[in-house]
Amino acid sequence: MKKRVVTFGEILTRLTTHNYERFTQASNFQIDYGGTEANVALALSNWGVPTTHVTALPNNDLGKSAYNYLRQYGVNTKHVLFNEGRMGLYFLESGAMQRPSKIIYDRFDSAFANINQKLIDWDNILEGVDWLHWTGITAAISSNAAQMCLDALTAAQKKGITVSGDINYRRNLWQYGKTPLEIMPALIEKTTVIVSGLVDFENCLGINKQDYIKTCEAVAAKYSSVKKITNTNRETINSSHNKLSGILWDQGSLFESSSYDMTHIVDRIGGGDAYMAGLIYGLLHKNNTDALEFAVASSVLKHSVPGDANLVSLEEVEQLAAGKNIGKLLR
Amino acid sequence: MKKRVVTFGEILTRLTTHNYERFTQASNFQIDYGGTEANVALALSNWGVPTTHVTALPNNDLGKSAYNYLRQYGVNTKHVLFNEGRMGLYFLESGAMQRPSKIIYDRFDSAFANINQKLIDWDNILEGVDWLHWTGITAAISSNAAQMCLDALTAAQKKGITVSGDINYRRNLWQYGKTPLEIMPALIEKTTVIVSGLVDFENCLGINKQDYIKTCEAVAAKYSSVKKITNTNRETINSSHNKLSGILWDQGSLFESSSYDMTHIVDRIGGGDAYMAGLIYGLLHKNNTDALEFAVASSVLKHSVPGDANLVSLEEVEQLAAGKNIGKLLR
Amino acid sequence: MKKRVVTFGEILTRLTTHNYERFTQASNFQIDYGGTEANVALALSNWGVPTTHVTALPNNDLGKSAYNYLRQYGVNTKHVLFNEGRMGLYFLESGAMQRPSKIIYDRFDSAFANINQKLIDWDNILEGVDWLHWTGITAAISSNAAQMCLDALTAAQKKGITVSGDINYRRNLWQYGKTPLEIMPALIEKTTVIVSGLVDFENCLGINKQDYIKTCEAVAAKYSSVKKITNTNRETINSSHNKLSGILWDQGSLFESSSYDMTHIVDRIGGGDAYMAGLIYGLLHKNNTDALEFAVASSVLKHSVPGDANLVSLEEVEQLAAGKNIGKLLR
Amino acid sequence: MKKRVVTFGEILTRLTTHNYERFTQASNFQIDYGGTEANVALALSNWGVPTTHVTALPNNDLGKSAYNYLRQYGVNTKHVLFNEGRMGLYFLESGAMQRPSKIIYDRFDSAFANINQKLIDWDNILEGVDWLHWTGITAAISSNAAQMCLDALTAAQKKGITVSGDINYRRNLWQYGKTPLEIMPALIEKTTVIVSGLVDFENCLGINKQDYIKTCEAVAAKYSSVKKITNTNRETINSSHNKLSGILWDQGSLFESSSYDMTHIVDRIGGGDAYMAGLIYGLLHKNNTDALEFAVASSVLKHSVPGDANLVSLEEVEQLAAGKNIGKLLR
Amino acid sequence: MKKRVVTFGEILTRLTTHNYERFTQASNFQIDYGGTEANVALALSNWGVPTTHVTALPNNDLGKSAYNYLRQYGVNTKHVLFNEGRMGLYFLESGAMQRPSKIIYDRFDSAFANINQKLIDWDNILEGVDWLHWTGITAAISSNAAQMCLDALTAAQKKGITVSGDINYRRNLWQYGKTPLEIMPALIEKTTVIVSGLVDFENCLGINKQDYIKTCEAVAAKYSSVKKITNTNRETINSSHNKLSGILWDQGSLFESSSYDMTHIVDRIGGGDAYMAGLIYGLLHKNNTDALEFAVASSVLKHSVPGDANLVSLEEVEQLAAGKNIGKLLR
Amino acid sequence: MKKRVVTFGEILTRLTTHNYERFTQASNFQIDYGGTEANVALALSNWGVPTTHVTALPNNDLGKSAYNYLRQYGVNTKHVLFNEGRMGLYFLESGAMQRPSKIIYDRFDSAFANINQKLIDWDNILEGVDWLHWTGITAAISSNAAQMCLDALTAAQKKGITVSGDINYRRNLWQYGKTPLEIMPALIEKTTVIVSGLVDFENCLGINKQDYIKTCEAVAAKYSSVKKITNTNRETINSSHNKLSGILWDQGSLFESSSYDMTHIVDRIGGGDAYMAGLIYGLLHKNNTDALEFAVASSVLKHSVPGDANLVSLEEVEQLAAGKNIGKLLR
Repeated sequence: MKKRVVTFGEILTRLTTHNYERFTQASNFQIDYGGTEANVALALSNWGVPTTHVTALPNNDLGKSAYNYLRQYGVNTKHVLFNEGRMGLYFLESGAMQRPSKIIYDRFDSAFANINQKLIDWDNILEGVDWLHWTGITAAISSNAAQMCLDALTAAQKKGITVSGDINYRRNLWQYGKTPLEIMPALIEKTTVIVSGLVDFENCLGINKQDYIKTCEAVAAKYSSVKKITNTNRETINSSHNKLSGILWDQGSLFESSSYDMTHIVDRIGGGDAYMAGLIYGLLHKNNTDALEFAVASSVLKHSVPGDANLVSLEEVEQLAAGKNIGKLLR
Repeated sequence: MKKRVVTFGEILTRLTTHNYERFTQASNFQIDYGGTEANVALALSNWGVPTTHVTALPNNDLGKSAYNYLRQYGVNTKHVLFNEGRMGLYFLESGAMQRPSKIIYDRFDSAFANINQKLIDWDNILEGVDWLHWTGITAAISSNAAQMCLDALTAAQKKGITVSGDINYRRNLWQYGKTPLEIMPALIEKTTVIVSGLVDFENCLGINKQDYIKTCEAVAAKYSSVKKITNTNRETINSSHNKLSGILWDQGSLFESSSYDMTHIVDRIGGGDAYMAGLIYGLLHKNNTDALEFAVASSVLKHSVPGDANLVSLEEVEQLAAGKNIGKLLR
Repeated sequence: MKKRVVTFGEILTRLTTHNYERFTQASNFQIDYGGTEANVALALSNWGVPTTHVTALPNNDLGKSAYNYLRQYGVNTKHVLFNEGRMGLYFLESGAMQRPSKIIYDRFDSAFANINQKLIDWDNILEGVDWLHWTGITAAISSNAAQMCLDALTAAQKKGITVSGDINYRRNLWQYGKTPLEIMPALIEKTTVIVSGLVDFENCLGINKQDYIKTCEAVAAKYSSVKKITNTNRETINSSHNKLSGILWDQGSLFESSSYDMTHIVDRIGGGDAYMAGLIYGLLHKNNTDALEFAVASSVLKHSVPGDANLVSLEEVEQLAAGKNIGKLLR
Repeated sequence: MKKRVVTFGEILTRLTTHNYERFTQASNFQIDYGGTEANVALALSNWGVPTTHVTALPNNDLGKSAYNYLRQYGVNTKHVLFNEGRMGLYFLESGAMQRPSKIIYDRFDSAFANINQKLIDWDNILEGVDWLHWTGITAAISSNAAQMCLDALTAAQKKGITVSGDINYRRNLWQYGKTPLEIMPALIEKTTVIVSGLVDFENCLGINKQDYIKTCEAVAAKYSSVKKITNTNRETINSSHNKLSGILWDQGSLFESSSYDMTHIVDRIGGGDAYMAGLIYGLLHKNNTDALEFAVASSVLKHSVPGDANLVSLEEVEQLAAGKNIGKLLR
Repeated sequence: MKKRVVTFGEILTRLTTHNYERFTQASNFQIDYGGTEANVALALSNWGVPTTHVTALPNNDLGKSAYNYLRQYGVNTKHVLFNEGRMGLYFLESGAMQRPSKIIYDRFDSAFANINQKLIDWDNILEGVDWLHWTGITAAISSNAAQMCLDALTAAQKKGITVSGDINYRRNLWQYGKTPLEIMPALIEKTTVIVSGLVDFENCLGINKQDYIKTCEAVAAKYSSVKKITNTNRETINSSHNKLSGILWDQGSLFESSSYDMTHIVDRIGGGDAYMAGLIYGLLHKNNTDALEFAVASSVLKHSVPGDANLVSLEEVEQLAAGKNIGKLLR
Repeated sequence: MKKRVVTFGEILTRLTTHNYERFTQASNFQIDYGGTEANVALALSNWGVPTTHVTALPNNDLGKSAYNYLRQYGVNTKHVLFNEGRMGLYFLESGAMQRPSKIIYDRFDSAFANINQKLIDWDNILEGVDWLHWTGITAAISSNAAQMCLDALTAAQKKGITVSGDINYRRNLWQYGKTPLEIMPALIEKTTVIVSGLVDFENCLGINKQDYIKTCEAVAAKYSSVKKITNTNRETINSSHNKLSGILWDQGSLFESSSYDMTHIVDRIGGGDAYMAGLIYGLLHKNNTDALEFAVASSVLKHSVPGDANLVSLEEVEQLAAGKNIGKLLR
């Protein structure tokens, strides 16, 4: 029987300049949609995993378009709320060479930030579900969103659902009067698999042993629910050329993936989400080693696709993880 | 010596779908900029009138792009503030045939709504100025904006500057806790030339004598500063086919313009602002009859140009007002 | 409880030249999707009617894209088959002025033409359904498709489901060795509501009494299942300017709709399907008079939207049928 | 045996703004090619008439592109010269509503203006040819071009080839030190069929009897080679809506065509050339009445096609001249 | 006197997604044309070699557009047939980074597959010709096409024309009931220059000595007409970065070209055809060493040009082969 | 107090093909503006330096658009002349891989070439100015332009203004009858900072000591005004991959910058101008070492931005010069 996944978080309209144009030159924006949790949902759905994304959208044509986008790629939208508030946006200017990429977020006071928790019945949503995924972005958006996240995790824990959390610390969010240290520990307490770097651990849990493995051990020691901790290693040569690998700590064992040279990057946004989606898929269907290789291959392929979403097939990820068809012409 | 004009109000980034696409179909947005008062400023600047636009913009690349847009068309930006807050946006879907055009405003909590009045020195800004233009949109945006508008009018009145105000009542604005009836009368009291229809008068001044002329008389009777009242008559056959004329009441005398058949409309947004710009230009340089004809011709031409701004030359407006070159091929 | 609808037929990739370019000038094709029955499904789904579209698509990225398109707009795709065969295509060049629009069909040997009837369980698909819609296009595509259509109607008739059929005679189809007169009567025998003009009746049923009403009576006399017959009247002034009204014959009573002047048509493809969708919606929820007005208003609005699909809301159709908001600017 | 035609004149790169944008808004130019004589050549070639265009182009990629454009549509380019000088350009901004279309010519010092007559062997070029077409544009460009035109006509007259000339007076050309009255009479003396309006006659031949027919008679009386005189009547309602008909004077007999309402014009450039091409085709293959109807139908269809060239088939022109398929959807 | 070349094969409409978009994201297709033999013809024509391409196209606007494309670049189209059948298509999604490029062919039952051999008079077509080029694609398409290919080679052999054949084995073609081993040997028997890799030799001739040179010797031993065998060596680092060199076996002598690092590849389709065109040009005008360097330089440049065709000049290929102007800015 | 800069030279409309298309493939041109001195002005203005650009433009919409472009980015246009003559143009085809970029200039007889020196009052323009920048392009365009350049330098020298000159030798210019050796020495005599390579020195001053430092010494020995000489070292791997560093000779001392690997170049046009702008900024605000690093970082970033202008902020250049944020994602 198929494994089922639920993700929870905001989806934004993404407005991107064309052909490496700077914002001040642009006469058009490409319209896409993205959000770290929705990106995970889309990738999983694309690979045949029944995935439900829980979010709130404004009741206008912008919200409707984002809703349609989720449906287009097969994500279950039964539990999407249409709420008061605006559509969250983000503006993207793609970097090139040494010039960094640049994002302007415009997401405050969104329908998701105003999400109405009374309308969400987590017990119902999580019925028959195998995996729940959340991120620190949601916890940072608003008090309502953070509370709903906690409700979801509580419900999941009761049902024995595996919970993954991407700590994803962003200083510019967290504007609603709470610090990560006040909010995140309660969420980590109910989480099984964590994506985190040292900076995230320090800012959200106040734990930093300098060494990654020692920090993992300290986190797991303090938060008994935490069984696996993972992260990507990204070396940035320039905006179009990065190197990528992944690492997975599993209750004391350490797994390291192959490293990929990613040059001629098309779009790096969503690369981390593609990794997370790959890892969830992998941990649901494979051993740690294969799961990690699948996750990294998924992330690498994402960098070749424009937009936030990892529109690559299961077969394509498997092929890359097996070192096949790299850069070929398939007819 | 050249007449000088100051306008005050918000400028928004406009995001328009292409080729009559509905929002839910769009893969790109055309980027433009607009705002009723800025549209007036641009048209006047285009015709060689030194025009300063006073506004506030966010200190990011979106704000910078709007700022550059004003400079591109020669509007003086010396008094533009860079402020906290986001860039105001509006999304536009152009109607066709019987299908109406549709705007989604996304302007709450903008840099302009948060405008810091301490940074604006109206006495300095209005030095040597002949005409000040404001609209009811500004009064509706926030308490700060309304107060600044009143400050500007007070300063203008002291200097004997002609003040025009476009009442422009929009029910969906006015969210900051005040009603138009609480705010608008004090502004009208300092205004010389008003753009208003019956509905505007009723909602903003509580005056509606059913008949337009009688209402004008009642308004002028109550607000002694008001010397001229004007409005456009627009008959809407469908989204691409309208008829347009203008009317001007001047202390008891009534002037009516030619009527134009506008078919194959390219973009109707900013049509009213082009009329207002034309009227300001006309009243500064012509008699009432010619001013009114200039105003309507300006508005008609605007409907043939994509975007908010009336990018037509003085000569082109004069030619149309004189019935010349209509629909020709000029080489 | 919500009424449920099932539609059955081929969906094609539509490739359209831009800006009235002729095929021989084009450097790009706009990609859309359409098919007469899928167009009906999309419109109904858009209005909140749970609608399932049954079709077959090739198991490649072109088929997947069409599948995603149906999902995007909420059409239930549970019963879509992925089959051997190619993706059906049609190329469109939009006419202008006196120049006609031009379609090049490229649909032979498609996955739908090769549809494997053993994989379709109509009893299951039609469970709990209120309305089934088919068209003569399906009957014309291949022997397999025509047989499946008959199977569907037989199953529907057993369950007492209302069946509508759009005769839609096209001489260039019907290449598989059967004539309409051999195939269509058996299908009409199981149909309740027919869309047909005189030419369709003559070619598919061999009945033509010259007069439309008399022909309706003759058809109903011969085919006892047929209760309602409808058609649109389209007067073509030129490619961008048509007039449209509808007529509905219901067991001897005749209903005629308002007539609309459609000028500045954006895209006439799918106009008839929007009418049919409107009529199905209307007959499920309104009386004949209102249903017919709804159908015509739906069709008129379709002509303002690019692509095959009628992406207009229930409220927009109701507003037009009530004569409201025509050509306005809604903010 | 097929009739053969030769045309002589400059071909320009045409750079057009998109979607009715004004020059000052444009971020892109559409690239097309055009020139009054080349437009005639293309239409004739498109209808199966073997047509050779004689011109000069710069020996760079812009010249090569124009050359390829002629080849693409089957015009014989064997006698195209690659010359010193620049590529002639014209910039086009399409009008809308009352706003006129605007052309900026940038053709001085072009390769064609510098054409080297020693490289052209008219006797060879005109061998076996039935019709030669020239226009007053060529005579206006440079002394070299005017001389070459005269050489061509002299050679044609010797061989008994029918010669048509479109007087096409444009005041802004004629910069090389000669007036039309000094140049044109010698060319008209060798011409059989003239396209001209009253203004053209006055400026180029100094003849204007106010009345068109009387003027034709006066011209034919003075220039014995002239057998037929023709012109289009264009009534300009606005930039998108014109009415068009044609008139043909043939040695005392007058023929008038049907009148067409052209609304929703796509591109009016080249409308006169499409008329001329149609008339040449018609006079080579039909009687005067049918030739004139063919010419007007050809011109009408041109107005529906973007670009200078009349990319419509023989069958399409015949259909419109017969009143068939107007504004239909052909599948 | 100029050498003349004839090529024979199908030309397809190519539909490509933009900016590395995946098929499921695309809203537009770029329209190009290509086919392995036509690509060779275009390159040769571009270099001033009179080249005739023999093919069949459908008698509709898609076929006409492909025909015009050949004419645009100077390929002689006198012997193109307009036939029953559809336009062959192929859909292309360009790969990036590790992600492979992907082609969906849609060419079955095309006008070319249905080519009517009675309408082709090879003796006439090949009169005065120096070189005939065919490929294994043609042999794989249909029985008709393979037979016509054999007819062409027989006629060429009689006239002593040099024949080149690109074996180009593709498993997914060969659907008409014959295997390559049944068809190809008879064609190779009449061929002088072969492009082939080991896999091609094995599948089409049943010869594979593991070592390339030994295999060449075995092929030449069996097929006495075969004098030269060539192939490209492509090392694929990723979709945007390949290395390329060429090898030429000439009756026992072996020639190896310089190797090029091709990074930031724009479009790799047609790279092999550009090599073949370069080799034909080279062998007609140069010695083996220079011919091979010219062929590889031609192929390298092709990878920098979007579309199938190698739109680079003779001078540009010569410059690269001489190591000049690499990556410069030429003004 | 802010340092003020004046630049003098022609601004051209730049027309660029899209997506590496060759000229012969293009259906659209991207419109930009550029010119070596205007590019310097824009960059400086962008960094907050009050900069005035002196030039002449044609009095039409093309000239007006270029004028608006300068205003858009804050360049002072008070001293721009509107003159007789055409708009100078240049056509650009971007290279890729080994294929070079290609420019077609079309600037002869432009408004700038015809510049009317009587209308320029250099004493007034240079009042309160700190730096004047000119280039050898201007000297090469026309006798008028060269004379005006000399006038400007003479006025600057009187006022003690620092003068920089970019020798920028281009053989294809210099068509007005003078050689560089006749014109350039008088200009260098009044210049403080020179950009020049060995070839430039040889062609414009007749000095070439083979060794760069020795040549600098010889130039400074002969031209006593010259204090600093600079140049970039560009190593061209291919069109998308260059290496760049800078060198600065200051009265005997030599400074060398860091070297940057520029791969995935977006647009190399204007790279030298960005270097010059950076150096002017640096020399006005920093020591030699920092100025040189700033100049090179500015040039590197330019290569990542489409168009001629270096649309990067002061902070972005400072960051790169400090080795920060390279290729990151800034949110």
